[in-house]
Amino acid sequence: MSAPKKVVLAYSGGLDTSIILKWLQTEYGCEVITYTADLGQGEELEPARRKAEMLGIKPENIHILDAREEFVRDFVFPMFRANAVYEGLYLLGTSIARPLISKHLVEIAHQHGADAVAHGATGKGNDQVRFELSAYALDPSIKVIAPWREWGLSSRTKLLEFAEANQIPIAKDKRGEAPFSVDANLLHTSSEGKVLEDPADMAPDYVYQRTDDPVTQAPNEPEYIEIGFEKGDAVSINGEAMSPATILTKLNEYGKKHGIGRLDFVENRFVGMKSRGVYETPGGTILLEAHRGIEQITLDSGAGHLKDSIMPRYAELIYNGFWFSPEREALQALIDKTQEYVTGTVKLMLFKGAARTVARWSEYSLYSEAHVTFEEDAGAYDQKDAAGFIQLNALRLKLIATRNARVKK
Amino acid sequence: MSAPKKVVLAYSGGLDTSIILKWLQTEYGCEVITYTADLGQGEELEPARRKAEMLGIKPENIHILDAREEFVRDFVFPMFRANAVYEGLYLLGTSIARPLISKHLVEIAHQHGADAVAHGATGKGNDQVRFELSAYALDPSIKVIAPWREWGLSSRTKLLEFAEANQIPIAKDKRGEAPFSVDANLLHTSSEGKVLEDPADMAPDYVYQRTDDPVTQAPNEPEYIEIGFEKGDAVSINGEAMSPATILTKLNEYGKKHGIGRLDFVENRFVGMKSRGVYETPGGTILLEAHRGIEQITLDSGAGHLKDSIMPRYAELIYNGFWFSPEREALQALIDKTQEYVTGTVKLMLFKGAARTVARWSEYSLYSEAHVTFEEDAGAYDQKDAAGFIQLNALRLKLIATRNARVKK
Amino acid sequence: MSAPKKVVLAYSGGLDTSIILKWLQTEYGCEVITYTADLGQGEELEPARRKAEMLGIKPENIHILDAREEFVRDFVFPMFRANAVYEGLYLLGTSIARPLISKHLVEIAHQHGADAVAHGATGKGNDQVRFELSAYALDPSIKVIAPWREWGLSSRTKLLEFAEANQIPIAKDKRGEAPFSVDANLLHTSSEGKVLEDPADMAPDYVYQRTDDPVTQAPNEPEYIEIGFEKGDAVSINGEAMSPATILTKLNEYGKKHGIGRLDFVENRFVGMKSRGVYETPGGTILLEAHRGIEQITLDSGAGHLKDSIMPRYAELIYNGFWFSPEREALQALIDKTQEYVTGTVKLMLFKGAARTVARWSEYSLYSEAHVTFEEDAGAYDQKDAAGFIQLNALRLKLIATRNARVKK
Amino acid sequence: MSAPKKVVLAYSGGLDTSIILKWLQTEYGCEVITYTADLGQGEELEPARRKAEMLGIKPENIHILDAREEFVRDFVFPMFRANAVYEGLYLLGTSIARPLISKHLVEIAHQHGADAVAHGATGKGNDQVRFELSAYALDPSIKVIAPWREWGLSSRTKLLEFAEANQIPIAKDKRGEAPFSVDANLLHTSSEGKVLEDPADMAPDYVYQRTDDPVTQAPNEPEYIEIGFEKGDAVSINGEAMSPATILTKLNEYGKKHGIGRLDFVENRFVGMKSRGVYETPGGTILLEAHRGIEQITLDSGAGHLKDSIMPRYAELIYNGFWFSPEREALQALIDKTQEYVTGTVKLMLFKGAARTVARWSEYSLYSEAHVTFEEDAGAYDQKDAAGFIQLNALRLKLIATRNARVKK
Repeated sequence: MSAPKKVVLAYSGGLDTSIILKWLQTEYGCEVITYTADLGQGEELEPARRKAEMLGIKPENIHILDAREEFVRDFVFPMFRANAVYEGLYLLGTSIARPLISKHLVEIAHQHGADAVAHGATGKGNDQVRFELSAYALDPSIKVIAPWREWGLSSRTKLLEFAEANQIPIAKDKRGEAPFSVDANLLHTSSEGKVLEDPADMAPDYVYQRTDDPVTQAPNEPEYIEIGFEKGDAVSINGEAMSPATILTKLNEYGKKHGIGRLDFVENRFVGMKSRGVYETPGGTILLEAHRGIEQITLDSGAGHLKDSIMPRYAELIYNGFWFSPEREALQALIDKTQEYVTGTVKLMLFKGAARTVARWSEYSLYSEAHVTFEEDAGAYDQKDAAGFIQLNALRLKLIATRNARVKK
Repeated sequence: MSAPKKVVLAYSGGLDTSIILKWLQTEYGCEVITYTADLGQGEELEPARRKAEMLGIKPENIHILDAREEFVRDFVFPMFRANAVYEGLYLLGTSIARPLISKHLVEIAHQHGADAVAHGATGKGNDQVRFELSAYALDPSIKVIAPWREWGLSSRTKLLEFAEANQIPIAKDKRGEAPFSVDANLLHTSSEGKVLEDPADMAPDYVYQRTDDPVTQAPNEPEYIEIGFEKGDAVSINGEAMSPATILTKLNEYGKKHGIGRLDFVENRFVGMKSRGVYETPGGTILLEAHRGIEQITLDSGAGHLKDSIMPRYAELIYNGFWFSPEREALQALIDKTQEYVTGTVKLMLFKGAARTVARWSEYSLYSEAHVTFEEDAGAYDQKDAAGFIQLNALRLKLIATRNARVKK
Repeated sequence: MSAPKKVVLAYSGGLDTSIILKWLQTEYGCEVITYTADLGQGEELEPARRKAEMLGIKPENIHILDAREEFVRDFVFPMFRANAVYEGLYLLGTSIARPLISKHLVEIAHQHGADAVAHGATGKGNDQVRFELSAYALDPSIKVIAPWREWGLSSRTKLLEFAEANQIPIAKDKRGEAPFSVDANLLHTSSEGKVLEDPADMAPDYVYQRTDDPVTQAPNEPEYIEIGFEKGDAVSINGEAMSPATILTKLNEYGKKHGIGRLDFVENRFVGMKSRGVYETPGGTILLEAHRGIEQITLDSGAGHLKDSIMPRYAELIYNGFWFSPEREALQALIDKTQEYVTGTVKLMLFKGAARTVARWSEYSLYSEAHVTFEEDAGAYDQKDAAGFIQLNALRLKLIATRNARVKK
Repeated sequence: MSAPKKVVLAYSGGLDTSIILKWLQTEYGCEVITYTADLGQGEELEPARRKAEMLGIKPENIHILDAREEFVRDFVFPMFRANAVYEGLYLLGTSIARPLISKHLVEIAHQHGADAVAHGATGKGNDQVRFELSAYALDPSIKVIAPWREWGLSSRTKLLEFAEANQIPIAKDKRGEAPFSVDANLLHTSSEGKVLEDPADMAPDYVYQRTDDPVTQAPNEPEYIEIGFEKGDAVSINGEAMSPATILTKLNEYGKKHGIGRLDFVENRFVGMKSRGVYETPGGTILLEAHRGIEQITLDSGAGHLKDSIMPRYAELIYNGFWFSPEREALQALIDKTQEYVTGTVKLMLFKGAARTVARWSEYSLYSEAHVTFEEDAGAYDQKDAAGFIQLNALRLKLIATRNARVKK
């Protein structure tokens, strides 16, 4: 790979990506363009602009974007149509944000005629894979620079030395090492590493930052909310229409208050090792429960069971970084096709760490029709049909049993 | 079908199956053998014996069995090895009990030289299918009698008239119609019908019989328990070894106390309609969470993802009544093969309606090994390997992007 | 079911459906509307018109349709996009025609205000299921009459007696029983029953009617043809653009000449039994091979493997009669999404019973790009990347091996 | 990676692996142990011994094994139980041999206390992955040396210079470059590269080495053979019992004579690119057809469809090199479970490039039983059952149609 000339860096404004910024300038002598996005991580972006300027980035090379609506509308919601969970439990909060960031990096690279993008993910995790697969899928000629896999700054001490040598300001609380590392966006907050590394030890309470403690802080009374859906996407809360990002923000508030969406999890990384993380997905956990609830009455068993059967593969693709792949897109076509009538309202009870569907209704319901038909119109269902249904379903089992009895003699 | 001569009836001792008993004698003039099993439904069995005697059944024709250990060991536990849930949420508590009952009915029929078995399931539900597919799979020449599909006793009034005309005692509380119908065994209690029929209405509190109310009754403090596993099956609680049925009984107590395992659900029946049920699976809900927890550290991603991908089909087979089918058995062989090292201990927090894994450990862990290796032995994982890993995973995506760019020109 | 007043009958003009026609008039006293379609079965339709008139059907109640283009365009081609084969070998020639016929029956019923449709399929086969599921999916209130399941004409003699008593002309060769029964359309000819019933006996030569004998009649020299594809559908042969039905007709001629597409097969019917059939699918067999050939260079492995994995389910749905179901439609959306670039040309060798892809090219090829890149531009593929790729793929296997060695000590 | 001290080399005796042998001695100064196996590739092994001795390998370090029976019994036959084909067509002849070779390399390494194994596969192909994943799965601490990824011998000229400089004899026909490269074992011969690189060009006739030309050489008369199976494995030909390797050898003779098993194929490599190969799998092609034939009558649809649905994943695992993985082993457990009654005989017609099942019989047949039952015992199948079967299968489709009609108003 020839040396990059212009690099778009995914820049948070924090210490690590500031070091990367400087290192790119130093190591490659290249022009750096910064990209900082509001994905709902709950931090102000203007400090990142000021810091980039301070590190010598030209104002026209600083890109700051509010990407929350795009994130929820084009990434989170399509994924939730599938009821996607990785390894039974994880709602893919980090995984789903990475392709969006890469998409923006590549778009900005094209605007500036840059030949490379750079990210701050390490060489042991999934994020490097997600960033890079997405970037390559969108621009096969782009270079991707992953400083953590390249440089020699292998310890905290060396990083701080590099920062000091390069006049990068170090916040006081960054002098020591954090007890765990954090990633956050509008969908979730993940924590891993350090104090969480032994899966036999319970996670300390202070790890949880996004949700109130269900035991000590959540209200003693349940709260009921109603979520409206159209074609599989949430469109309103308690009857009030809202944009995608507004809905997720609002659900996060409900979830936080009731301590919903905590997960202590050991997962299999794509790069081959197991890791333990603590995830908080307050709004997403409510949304998943609600989406299942509305599908219960609006989705037919044929479509529903098909979706269930391909979901693990779909979730794995997202986890592994293959959002921009033909197979994810083909699965999405399948999933979206099933959501045509997934429209209606779900009522949920929120209480002490859990969200439970307690009622659901829809003009698209396949249930109420059945109800009307079966209870009142005797002609609609003839119980004797069941006898024939069972006989033909049993036929092959009888043939097997007859054969087995014969050959065992 | 020629008239049956000897029939083994799944007999609960209740009004409905007593009417069936009498109807079989009256309608077919056949000898009736009763089978009553303790599957953990929480009712005494001796009254069923006395009632059968009173209805003229010969003592040697009355079979009363404690089937709890067999139920949990041979049916519930194998199913839990698969993390089986139907349509994302239902733990299959009713479905898994049916094949066991049919197995016993057929065995008793063989002992007595009976040519038929009979059950009290209606013509609209799944249970008739489950009973009959199991019976036919075990004895292809057996007759199965399903009175509800045959007789003219189509209203409560007619049933009561038949009972009175045939000297069947009617308990006072059976004069009126129950507000919903109930099925129970050691794994769960299900409630459906009547007051539950409109899925837009919240289930009344009195429907819940098996679990304390998480809001008003469950303790305000969480409780922690440890479940030990061997080859995928729970074998101990808090270090104390117990038999399968004892473990599930004990977990049910924990679950009841903390209000765990309530599910308000609309499902797709095999016979084609949607129905709404309320399920309480206190111990099973804890067990599922714990089993997932121990698999997290002991199961490899290859085996784990394979299991996840076939689980919906496995669950559907059980739901639909195909426990005794070659495909369920083949899937079981796959599942059991993956459980060889699923041995270790999971610590769970039980609190206000939820069970959450908070820690897990095992001498079979694939995690701790990784931990030791990666953090301390720098040679075990070379971050530069990730670059090659990503490049080759990206190759086809690059080729697609290159092709697409070319043809779009 | 109340008696039907107006019935649309799928009418071939043959003896059996003529008897049904008369029986419907006699049994139900209903008005009969006939529907006869040219699906490429190779029979003239005008005799059916004359026969219907002779049996008293009003001219405005006789519908004769050339459905060949619709059949191939809307049913056969979408199915071939999936490379659908049932149980590894059967190309679903009968299965795919049934939903089209039902669609027409229902459409004509709506035109005439008819309340029922009728078909001539027996109660033991799959076709009854396919006809009826399709009809019900398109009009849930339609009645379907299946005379073979209802009437008492259980023997050939009784049928002939009924025909004679009702002045239905009987062709001389229909007096005796045919040695096997046949179904044909543009995609295939199937033969089953009678002389074919013992799967241990070889099918007699005279069973094959659609293809020349590869041993005695097919040319001694291979023939090469080129099939052009656009988005997964065949659009030309040897460079000449043709309509869907014309292409299949032409491929059938090639296939017939070279004895291609014979299959002697024992299959599992949806109704639970096994049956043995002989299928001849001359053009379809060539088309399947060609479609696989063009996918080889234009389809990415991600999309291709996904398609392969869902194909058996898709084929089973079509075989079982669920063409008009949400799950078939969702799978179709997935399949169609993958075909966007399946455009190019395949060259095949036709010889003595087989069609083999021998070359393929496309401007959408993912191969030629690779070829250019890898052989000449050394930078495009770094063999050292493979080392990292293997190391990370091996990581979990190493962890397993290490664990297993540890616990076995 | 520290330098290896003792290396077990997969040694064919040919020029390339002789160069590798010498390079290992030169580059690493390590002791080399050679392993040469007869996998049915059709070459004598003694010349390899002599050549190894000539290159300075101690006699006790030369291992020559006849692995044919192990290869067919423990690798080929288990794979054929699954009817495994990769991407619809490829019978995995190369893929299935690699894990066996790695198993032997690791076993010999353990005998000698060697710390490394070496193979001659290049960095662009699948074989490197297969060798190395297998080796790491069997011994996580073994080193694997892949000289083609390491050395600088990047051209034919450099290789020959190295050979001459090191006194490695060069056969005359190895001076020039072969027009394509070949891999062979008892299951197949594969050819790729050079003259085969453009998939738009037909493969020249001289590429085919393992099968007679169906057009010009195969007999003009078909030949019929009978293959006996037990539990899914072939055990006899024409009634004569034979060992696994003998059967495959014999089938290869039949296949060669009739020109059976040629495949011109473009496949997706695991490492991300497409490649074109010509495969000849004479005996395997016959065996696959026969295995499908015996399954047709002995395997139930439930087990059969399950197998079909997981087959693509199973084949992909083998292709990608994951033979020794928990997921392949779990799938094998499923497959083997289904083969319990796959016992009986298949009659095939071999003619001009194709093998077709023409008859099959078995005492384990599920067909003949059905035949006897349905045709003669009217009571066994009640056609009226089909009505109920269809009604309940149609129910959900009717409900959907009713809903759709309602909401579209």
